[in-house]
Amino acid sequence: MAFGWIDEQAELRRRAGLVRTLRPRPADSPLLDLASNDYLGLARHPEVTEGAARAARTWGGGATGSRLVTGTTELHAELERELADFCGFEAALVFSSGYAANLAAVTTLAPHGSLIVSDAGNHASLIDGCRLARGATQVVAHADPDAVRKALGTHEGPAVAVSDTVFSVDGDAAPLAALAEACRERGAGLVVDDAHGLGVLGDGGRGAPYAAGLAGADDVVVTVTLSKSLGSQGGAVLGPARVVDHLVNAARTFIFDTGLAPAAAGSALAALRLLRREPERAARARAVAGELHARLTAAGLEAVRPDAAVVSVRAPSPEQAVRWAADCRAAGLAVGCFRPPSVPDGISRLRLTARADLSEAQIERAVRVIGGARP
Amino acid sequence: MAFGWIDEQAELRRRAGLVRTLRPRPADSPLLDLASNDYLGLARHPEVTEGAARAARTWGGGATGSRLVTGTTELHAELERELADFCGFEAALVFSSGYAANLAAVTTLAPHGSLIVSDAGNHASLIDGCRLARGATQVVAHADPDAVRKALGTHEGPAVAVSDTVFSVDGDAAPLAALAEACRERGAGLVVDDAHGLGVLGDGGRGAPYAAGLAGADDVVVTVTLSKSLGSQGGAVLGPARVVDHLVNAARTFIFDTGLAPAAAGSALAALRLLRREPERAARARAVAGELHARLTAAGLEAVRPDAAVVSVRAPSPEQAVRWAADCRAAGLAVGCFRPPSVPDGISRLRLTARADLSEAQIERAVRVIGGARP
Repeated sequence: MAFGWIDEQAELRRRAGLVRTLRPRPADSPLLDLASNDYLGLARHPEVTEGAARAARTWGGGATGSRLVTGTTELHAELERELADFCGFEAALVFSSGYAANLAAVTTLAPHGSLIVSDAGNHASLIDGCRLARGATQVVAHADPDAVRKALGTHEGPAVAVSDTVFSVDGDAAPLAALAEACRERGAGLVVDDAHGLGVLGDGGRGAPYAAGLAGADDVVVTVTLSKSLGSQGGAVLGPARVVDHLVNAARTFIFDTGLAPAAAGSALAALRLLRREPERAARARAVAGELHARLTAAGLEAVRPDAAVVSVRAPSPEQAVRWAADCRAAGLAVGCFRPPSVPDGISRLRLTARADLSEAQIERAVRVIGGARP
Repeated sequence: MAFGWIDEQAELRRRAGLVRTLRPRPADSPLLDLASNDYLGLARHPEVTEGAARAARTWGGGATGSRLVTGTTELHAELERELADFCGFEAALVFSSGYAANLAAVTTLAPHGSLIVSDAGNHASLIDGCRLARGATQVVAHADPDAVRKALGTHEGPAVAVSDTVFSVDGDAAPLAALAEACRERGAGLVVDDAHGLGVLGDGGRGAPYAAGLAGADDVVVTVTLSKSLGSQGGAVLGPARVVDHLVNAARTFIFDTGLAPAAAGSALAALRLLRREPERAARARAVAGELHARLTAAGLEAVRPDAAVVSVRAPSPEQAVRWAADCRAAGLAVGCFRPPSVPDGISRLRLTARADLSEAQIERAVRVIGGARP
């Protein structure tokens, strides 16, 4: 039968305890959420949801076409201007997802004959970008500027180094300034995914590149997502105007995709304006992460010191990670559970997000539940 | 300099007359729209925009996480059930874009050692799916079931044929029943992208696979978009439950992407319910396309007979296509302009969409403007 081989794979997954199942959540979930990427607690902020509602009413339920045909509204242009301005870059280009933005940035900046130097811990969307790009990819050790320098030294012609700014699994930060220095020595570009940095790192949440002094650099391109700190959906590429113009002309996930829905653009824009007005949300997310880490460590758990708002706690095995997360859920706490094949190193973890709007009591409760349910 | 080579490419584009520029549109554009993919005229329907607004208020501006963590709401599950039911398939899985749905379907159904037989006219997202898949790809002649049969005959082991149901550039339909027959003879699966069929073809807009008697088949997988007939954003994969379960466990653009924004799910669901209540919209879109084609042909223009709601009119050159479209725009009519490198055969065209809500007077005006501006 056509798809018979699927059943064998399903059986292998069952035996390995790796079956994933969707669990639809209600609108009024009683769970305390430490699993989402809603770092600033803005996804359900009335200004953000009204931003979505207003945009849908004004512009329609969808963008109606690709960005180069009918899918660019004045709302998209406004969002792009304000995003670029906030993060300190010359121009921005909005996509329907961060995944699409990453595919676009990597494929268009790594043409035939070029080299991509890619961090071993990079997100799946950057990896897929490398695989789709016409350039050759060399994967280097995690967060290792010397390895990047060495790899770039093996190549003549256009080259880019590609890295997450904050790695989604362990929440550790890339050594951005040192990476930029290694790239500059070799005349290479630097492409970084700030999905977990925007809204959390840098002055008022302007992001990791801003914090590293790289904002506006002519050899740095940043991708961000609108679906984490900005509580919406979509992604964007930020960089020099010439790079953005190049993407408009060459990026397949831009040219051949319907534009971002107006509601998503509207809610992202509302969240961005809210963040400008309340810059302390960024610092609060970092402080919550630090506190979670300190308390979990004090409770004897093995947690990685957070560089942003992700706190990763190691679990002994995939099965125990799944049971641990399930026990937390039964006790009213939603936590992420990362396990093979979604982790680069095969280590299973609980993944906690330090939302800026968590109260002291909620932090205390979360730590108590996690500690009490430990395997 | 890091991205110096970009300027050379920009210069080449300028010289070839192929520079693309974004043109943000206002909310109250005076242009008559024959350029969007809003086939049923639902993107700005009050029920659809209220569906978006209500969903944002109830569920938030974003889904807050990947579908397997916090990004699946009961609204997503409801949309998936109703989509599958409407199109006649066992299960559905919603993605943040049709592009992401296509990458998921092709990559997960073409594992290492398998063969993908891909139509030469397929959409960029299917092509990128082939390039990302571990299986080997063989590109065959456009809309040619015998070529598919022959290609499948060269391979032992899992295989799929991949095709658009309606090709976006010329609006011609794939020979679905014959393709399915060729696949069945060889025990291969059939993966088809019904982006331009859903809402237009089949009983009440149930899509091209439904019209071809393939709905619910255990060897057929269909991708659709929520951003065309359903006036929203997003995509979906429809098929047997075991295939959908496989995607939940294996599709990278599902696992590593934030879930579709609630507003987009809400507006798509509202549009779907509206279409069920007013099934005549599908037939009307087809009738408008037929009328546009008849009148354009009568006016001496070279237009392809439409199989769905896309009407393609040939232009003598890329430059003349651009000027033709610009002249239409100056006369108050928005039309699509497809030219290299976005067309598989190098032929430039005007691309018109036959919206179900176009009046006779609007059709007449459109034909008059297009004829009057011809090169």
